[in-house]
Amino acid sequence: MSKTETVLALDIGGTKMLAALVRGETVADSVTLPTPKGEGGPAEWLATLFAEIAHWQGTYESVGVAVTGIVDDGLWSPLNRRTLDIPDRFPLLQTVMGLSEKPAIAANDAQAAAWGEYRYGDGEGDLVFLTISTGIGGGVVLDGRLKTGLAGHFGLALGQDFDGVLEDHVSGNFIAAEAAGHQPGASAREVFAAAEKGESWAEAILDLSARRAAILCRNIQLTFDPARIVIGGGIGLAPGYRARIEAHLNDVPERLRPRLVPARLGDKAGVVGIADLARETKTQNQTNQ
Amino acid sequence: MSKTETVLALDIGGTKMLAALVRGETVADSVTLPTPKGEGGPAEWLATLFAEIAHWQGTYESVGVAVTGIVDDGLWSPLNRRTLDIPDRFPLLQTVMGLSEKPAIAANDAQAAAWGEYRYGDGEGDLVFLTISTGIGGGVVLDGRLKTGLAGHFGLALGQDFDGVLEDHVSGNFIAAEAAGHQPGASAREVFAAAEKGESWAEAILDLSARRAAILCRNIQLTFDPARIVIGGGIGLAPGYRARIEAHLNDVPERLRPRLVPARLGDKAGVVGIADLARETKTQNQTNQ
Repeated sequence: MSKTETVLALDIGGTKMLAALVRGETVADSVTLPTPKGEGGPAEWLATLFAEIAHWQGTYESVGVAVTGIVDDGLWSPLNRRTLDIPDRFPLLQTVMGLSEKPAIAANDAQAAAWGEYRYGDGEGDLVFLTISTGIGGGVVLDGRLKTGLAGHFGLALGQDFDGVLEDHVSGNFIAAEAAGHQPGASAREVFAAAEKGESWAEAILDLSARRAAILCRNIQLTFDPARIVIGGGIGLAPGYRARIEAHLNDVPERLRPRLVPARLGDKAGVVGIADLARETKTQNQTNQ
Repeated sequence: MSKTETVLALDIGGTKMLAALVRGETVADSVTLPTPKGEGGPAEWLATLFAEIAHWQGTYESVGVAVTGIVDDGLWSPLNRRTLDIPDRFPLLQTVMGLSEKPAIAANDAQAAAWGEYRYGDGEGDLVFLTISTGIGGGVVLDGRLKTGLAGHFGLALGQDFDGVLEDHVSGNFIAAEAAGHQPGASAREVFAAAEKGESWAEAILDLSARRAAILCRNIQLTFDPARIVIGGGIGLAPGYRARIEAHLNDVPERLRPRLVPARLGDKAGVVGIADLARETKTQNQTNQ
């Protein structure tokens, strides 16, 4: 099986659906549609997406599907119905194999991205991927294997002494909400711009977010002990943010200190990762036959 | 390699040193000495322990050593010098192989216990072991492999919004400290006794501890997604404590709810686990030759 074999990779999120033809870490072609949340369910959405890419038929040998939510044995369930309201245990794999008539694999989107960063990033050993954007997602690769199911949902961890989940106190939504008293309606991006101009309120918000992200990274090190933590997402990759996290880790003893590295694949980590998983699974199945 | 081959298992903690002859999950003989913290260092302590068990020579084929602290590549480093103050990167494996003239393996004590529970407990799949006693320790077995290094140090995780580490807000030390205002000098065991008699202050302390342990278990489920969380330790196995944790998990959606099971091996989990690891490593080395 060539690593450059073309895979159809789908990424179904709360806002958009992406279809891509992927070879290695290259996206050869892609189509994006809004997720039609009001209309029908996943079966209809996938049919719409496959109709849009009907002309790709014959150009790919396998399919990988990355989705927001939980995937157990090819069945897709929602984790947060505010992000995407789907029925419990939707037969995702079966539906995609029916539409594509190709072997397929499915996984959570952040887990797929973690795998992409593992396969195409630098370095060896266990990896935890942390994407800090509107919310916080993650994925874990241990002993060369991607952990599936719930694994890596760091943003949904509960605090001991605060309300809600961790991402509500760290992520882009948090940064924008904190800014309301200073610059009404400011987006997270605008808070970064204000901090760049030296606005102390913006500095303080980003620093609080980064301090909490640093505690999360430190706790990940103490519980998973990965060789590296890959930081991605719009906030995670925003200029200066990773350095802010690292500033809060300077006093951590060397053996306990997380090694943070930036995500390499950016937006395409999910499709590149799920394509690689699809390729690998197909190879294994052929080997087993 | 027979599973009942005898292994010399050592468990070196902050209070005591235990040497045991282990066959399967049976401890055939054991010796306990206080850890002579004031006198010399690990090299002297181990020499003292081996002198005590000199008459066992010839009855075991391999050695496993479980210790408090971090073990990386056979080198032992302290994680908390208040528990046991040893030098950084002490050559533990080399010292033990020199004293025993047998193949040896070393690991963290809670990690060794996690392996014991994995091998001799019931059920399949990924396992997280949580020992709640004076402090909180843990270990993780994923895809049939014990995670080493820092992995599983749940008690040392930092809170986002409280001082110190998680175990300071949950464990036996916490329970005893909280009791000071109600029953001066009460131990954690006495707080359990008071709760049994219906004392509301004692109920409240245990409930707060269990509520925080429940949040920890829920977060472990969201990040590791183990098939089960094995609860051990003097507090974790105290009558009613696990039920208190579970009461705080009743409203968690089924797919996200941790499955808690009691530790089977009790005090001997560490020596049984490290003995099994020693047996397995020896087998692998022989297979590789």
